[in-house]
Amino acid sequence: MNLLSLFSKKDKSASVAKNRLQILLAHERTGSGPDATLVSKLREDILEVIKKHIEIDPEAVQIEMDRDGEVTTLGIDIELPVKASENA
Amino acid sequence: MNLLSLFSKKDKSASVAKNRLQILLAHERTGSGPDATLVSKLREDILEVIKKHIEIDPEAVQIEMDRDGEVTTLGIDIELPVKASENA
Repeated sequence: MNLLSLFSKKDKSASVAKNRLQILLAHERTGSGPDATLVSKLREDILEVIKKHIEIDPEAVQIEMDRDGEVTTLGIDIELPVKASENA
Repeated sequence: MNLLSLFSKKDKSASVAKNRLQILLAHERTGSGPDATLVSKLREDILEVIKKHIEIDPEAVQIEMDRDGEVTTLGIDIELPVKASENA
């Protein structure tokens, strides 16, 4: 998956002193079915899943959604709390 | 989010005649805490969330995971069933 390597490289070069979790979601439709809302539906559910595992400050979450022709993309960028032991 | 635009452009140029859902997840740790398994934990949960909304053929799912220093990345690539009405 060449997308993955692209993403990985980009992420490292933009590294800053914060723990982060980034999710990119792309939905590509060849047809014009009613699935355009799939990404919207997934957004809240994925955030719920993440909250099960880690504490998220709602103010530390950035969400961007974009629709361009057949491709709907969703970006979720979350700043994670740095553990007390790492922070000391 | 420049990552998002990169992803979007790449996705369109690689467009093929199939509906797809792609998820890229990157976890970047500044410290060396025990959070390295977060991505593993999220993988199954995110797949469960997707299955709630759409039927997924397990053979149509590709998952790649990579750990490189502070960054753990997960790529999920799912071929979606094209609706009968679009397939006709």
